[in-house]
Amino acid sequence: AAMAEGPQLKRKRQEEEEAAAGAGPHGGAAADISPFPLAELRLRKVLRESARDKAVFLHGEVTTASGEGRDAVIILEKTPFQEEKVLELLKKHTKLELQMHNDIYSTYHLYPPPELSEIKATVVFPATQKHLQKYLRQEVFLVRESWQDYRDITLPFIQQQALSLQWVYNILEKKAEAERIIHENPDPCNGFVLLPDFKWNQNQVRLLLLAL
Amino acid sequence: AAMAEGPQLKRKRQEEEEAAAGAGPHGGAAADISPFPLAELRLRKVLRESARDKAVFLHGEVTTASGEGRDAVIILEKTPFQEEKVLELLKKHTKLELQMHNDIYSTYHLYPPPELSEIKATVVFPATQKHLQKYLRQEVFLVRESWQDYRDITLPFIQQQALSLQWVYNILEKKAEAERIIHENPDPCNGFVLLPDFKWNQNQVRLLLLAL
Repeated sequence: AAMAEGPQLKRKRQEEEEAAAGAGPHGGAAADISPFPLAELRLRKVLRESARDKAVFLHGEVTTASGEGRDAVIILEKTPFQEEKVLELLKKHTKLELQMHNDIYSTYHLYPPPELSEIKATVVFPATQKHLQKYLRQEVFLVRESWQDYRDITLPFIQQQALSLQWVYNILEKKAEAERIIHENPDPCNGFVLLPDFKWNQNQVRLLLLAL
Repeated sequence: AAMAEGPQLKRKRQEEEEAAAGAGPHGGAAADISPFPLAELRLRKVLRESARDKAVFLHGEVTTASGEGRDAVIILEKTPFQEEKVLELLKKHTKLELQMHNDIYSTYHLYPPPELSEIKATVVFPATQKHLQKYLRQEVFLVRESWQDYRDITLPFIQQQALSLQWVYNILEKKAEAERIIHENPDPCNGFVLLPDFKWNQNQVRLLLLAL
């Protein structure tokens, strides 16, 4: 990722990004819940895919009312099987195709009805260059880092790359996800808010919580 | 797993298993390709599930023509997204449900038509106790093993637990998967047969090959 951006340029870009998101600091476009126009998306690039996780990260573009193209990140992930629906899946498939058979082993392709084949779609819109960068397949390196390296190189880079925290203010100010709050401690000093994490698929037994 | 089985009992059980599979040594039930009666399966137990891999391993039972219950292992695994079908998926979904929205982030449940939501089903039928054991969730241990330990403890256990190699003879004798063979070297000494592995989903670019 490019690190050669001056502080002035950085501030300018942040302002642009906030304007693009339709939100000044603590503003929040949380009230606007018109569904994202998925069918009108133009696919620009597959940022990353994971055959093991059955997930794909897409860079797409949508034309706004003003005729302008805006970037979006779409993450598609197949959902885990739900134990209580497995039997239904075996009985209600629309088609079963034999792929191969050998001795006691055989493989099939099974085509389930829509209600049994949910996909989780996560949309980031409008997406900034930082979002596109975040979801792009990255090479991984192992680095030995002194605390000076952390202070002088890593920390400034992290701060420069930080994404907007608007979504956190939306939760704290009850402008978004208010109905998802599980517990709230209103103490002015040690207070916190607890709610299910974004990444949790609402079907798994294991619950991911986010404490703010 | 129980290791206290005597050699006589072991041979007897192997014969039973081979009879159950409808195959003596080198016999092979490969010609019988009537589809497995998936809709008639009674679910006995979920052997294992992996939320990350989107896979589930089932122990089921099917009643044969003679009225007898027979064990089966069914492995269901959602298939990876195919790049060339992703755009179709975004346009042809049957339903799109908003789950949450906060700032520029939102999540949806998307319900694709059957032809775009393939599941790979692997069937082991009839399954032996060894198959049920193989797919059951196992605790994992890290063990320091000397070569004596390997020879005296591990190797006898592996040999005792070995599954039937009937499927290998079926391939070598062209009784099954003959149409899947990619390359064959008929040399009587160094000859081999190359074909796509069972675990390969036929859509991925990475090809798993099996050399016999």
